[in-house]
Amino acid sequence: MESIQKKIGIIGGGQLGQMMILEAKKMGFYITILDPTLHCPAHTLVDEHIVADFEDAAAIRLLAQKSDVVTYEFEHINAQVLEELEAEGHVVYPTAHSLAIIQNKLSQKSLLAKHGLAVPEFCPISNEKEMEEAGLSFSYPYMLKSCTGGYDGKGNFLVHSPEEIAEGFAALGGGSLPLMAEKFFPFVMEISVLACRSANGDIAVYPVAQNHHIDSILDETRVPADIRPETTQAAMDLARRVMEVFAGVGMFCVEMFVGPEGEVAVNEVAPRPHNSGHYTIEACVTSQFEQHIRAVSALPLGDPSLLRPAVMRNILGEEGFHGPAQVIGAEKALAIPGVTLHIYGKTDSKPKRKMGHLTATAPTLAEAIERASVAHAAIRIQGTLPLHP
Amino acid sequence: MESIQKKIGIIGGGQLGQMMILEAKKMGFYITILDPTLHCPAHTLVDEHIVADFEDAAAIRLLAQKSDVVTYEFEHINAQVLEELEAEGHVVYPTAHSLAIIQNKLSQKSLLAKHGLAVPEFCPISNEKEMEEAGLSFSYPYMLKSCTGGYDGKGNFLVHSPEEIAEGFAALGGGSLPLMAEKFFPFVMEISVLACRSANGDIAVYPVAQNHHIDSILDETRVPADIRPETTQAAMDLARRVMEVFAGVGMFCVEMFVGPEGEVAVNEVAPRPHNSGHYTIEACVTSQFEQHIRAVSALPLGDPSLLRPAVMRNILGEEGFHGPAQVIGAEKALAIPGVTLHIYGKTDSKPKRKMGHLTATAPTLAEAIERASVAHAAIRIQGTLPLHP
Repeated sequence: MESIQKKIGIIGGGQLGQMMILEAKKMGFYITILDPTLHCPAHTLVDEHIVADFEDAAAIRLLAQKSDVVTYEFEHINAQVLEELEAEGHVVYPTAHSLAIIQNKLSQKSLLAKHGLAVPEFCPISNEKEMEEAGLSFSYPYMLKSCTGGYDGKGNFLVHSPEEIAEGFAALGGGSLPLMAEKFFPFVMEISVLACRSANGDIAVYPVAQNHHIDSILDETRVPADIRPETTQAAMDLARRVMEVFAGVGMFCVEMFVGPEGEVAVNEVAPRPHNSGHYTIEACVTSQFEQHIRAVSALPLGDPSLLRPAVMRNILGEEGFHGPAQVIGAEKALAIPGVTLHIYGKTDSKPKRKMGHLTATAPTLAEAIERASVAHAAIRIQGTLPLHP
Repeated sequence: MESIQKKIGIIGGGQLGQMMILEAKKMGFYITILDPTLHCPAHTLVDEHIVADFEDAAAIRLLAQKSDVVTYEFEHINAQVLEELEAEGHVVYPTAHSLAIIQNKLSQKSLLAKHGLAVPEFCPISNEKEMEEAGLSFSYPYMLKSCTGGYDGKGNFLVHSPEEIAEGFAALGGGSLPLMAEKFFPFVMEISVLACRSANGDIAVYPVAQNHHIDSILDETRVPADIRPETTQAAMDLARRVMEVFAGVGMFCVEMFVGPEGEVAVNEVAPRPHNSGHYTIEACVTSQFEQHIRAVSALPLGDPSLLRPAVMRNILGEEGFHGPAQVIGAEKALAIPGVTLHIYGKTDSKPKRKMGHLTATAPTLAEAIERASVAHAAIRIQGTLPLHP
């Protein structure tokens, strides 16, 4: 007998886990999380919380024992134990295999390139000599990347000239950590396309989102992206092909570059709901979080259609302060029509930490941009203690 | 310094409390509930749960001590202790005063009539002789109502002729409980209008919802209602005037009758989010639950506009079964585009118990009706034990 009442285990109780759980609880799922932080954002929303490190194999095994399916809110976790659990008959979505490939940017890009998907040119880097060769092949500047563990721009180094080779190699731990070089893609826009694959292979592709980063951290997402219809179609097709290649079950985010002629190429793939998909909560028929829960619990996918234009703005911890977080200006932000506020409930704020976000929807994208901008200027989340420089 | 991080206390941890909390947690509020049932729907979503009876004055006081504002998910609670708490400086929204008036249907209707708002004719009933007089005045059939404690048709008795007076009077506890008689309103449609008043007096009025009941329990809500524009305007105006009369802070639901000429009259007022407002979660810019949380925490109201047509269907416990609840057919229901499923997580099912609901949205109301109908036919929630007749 089919039943929705599965038990879901989630590795990670940050904001992505929290937003998954808010959707899962709407549908009555039993939730256990694994997160080392007791008072993490998801803590008060779960049935059980295993307080343990993300690399703790015994704790991950315990999570699997308590759950009908294990999923995760971020990709830097112990993939090996997930593979073992799958071999023992546990269900892990997205699968440990697709996670292992994605965790390593070199294997991720290699798989995509092997299937003929558009990616910037790349090569592995083992030493400074290979960096010199990359410079000759790709010209300068090019991107040096750590193959594992990077996020929000961490693990990237833009090599402007041969003089920066030694610095870059050392900065990213060359010699001890695996590195890769990537030809610089002369993008005119960064976009992302969310896509989800169900257990039976159906794929739902979301509208194209236009992203703006500050210091490599996402600042703003606008939907729909300001691109030509044929670029939109190319980006959505590319996202669908990525889902076919990885055969992953669950939400994925495909970050892409758009070139001057409207050509698109994959920048990075994340096997999970993504910051650039938060707009779906208010603006799409089915949010990325509900979609992920549907997929990992073997339910049919929902309609990813956009209801109306939306702009998401991240709220980062205010510069100059740390310590216990306080929200300032929520009244002003929420007075703007169509603005929804998400406060993650992180106990402490620090500069650039993702503390919350807001989404503005409106009948037109121009209005949504304006609403989000006014609301974003009105609100801040900051620690109560000044940071001394 | 303004802050969103208030502590909210909620009396009642059923599905309405649960859906309030899902919105409140999105915004980072600290939540304490009071509910006698440990494994009530809201239990796993809260920071603290006071397990106590709704009439327990000491427990309600404890809830108030733990909270910056106290609210409630249903109206049959101890209003006197709430009045005392207000007198001592605690904030209770909606106010104990408006709750006390609404709890008694006679005082509720009297206040509305005093302000000239359209209500069916009514009078208090203390004995069978007054019922005879009501019959002469209103003609038959007329409605006999318990002034306090009724819901989902409980506490109502339709008096078809003088011969039923003694039965009706006895059935509703006449002599010991306060009763009232109400002229039968020859309605062609039942509608409801949700409205919310903020702490500073702003009022947001939602679209008109068309309701269909089976055995006095809500079965289906369609939005927008199939009525003329001038009837829509009259209904929304009436809801706004109700909010002005009660001066309540928070979500209210005004259930109304529509007569053959499009005239509207208030049937009942509920000082809380309402079953007929569940459609707002998927279909409106601001859901009734987020709106309630905004209002009681003194934040500005959100936009109540409809994004697209919606139909809500309740999922009641399946006839013929009781005991541990199981969900059957969720896969089929969720395969219909635009369908969202809400499972309240009640441990046990019994016939007619509200176990969940589904909402279908679509570009047209006709499609939403069809989608909801197909999904509703596909899903059931039932106990694992057969009920022997």
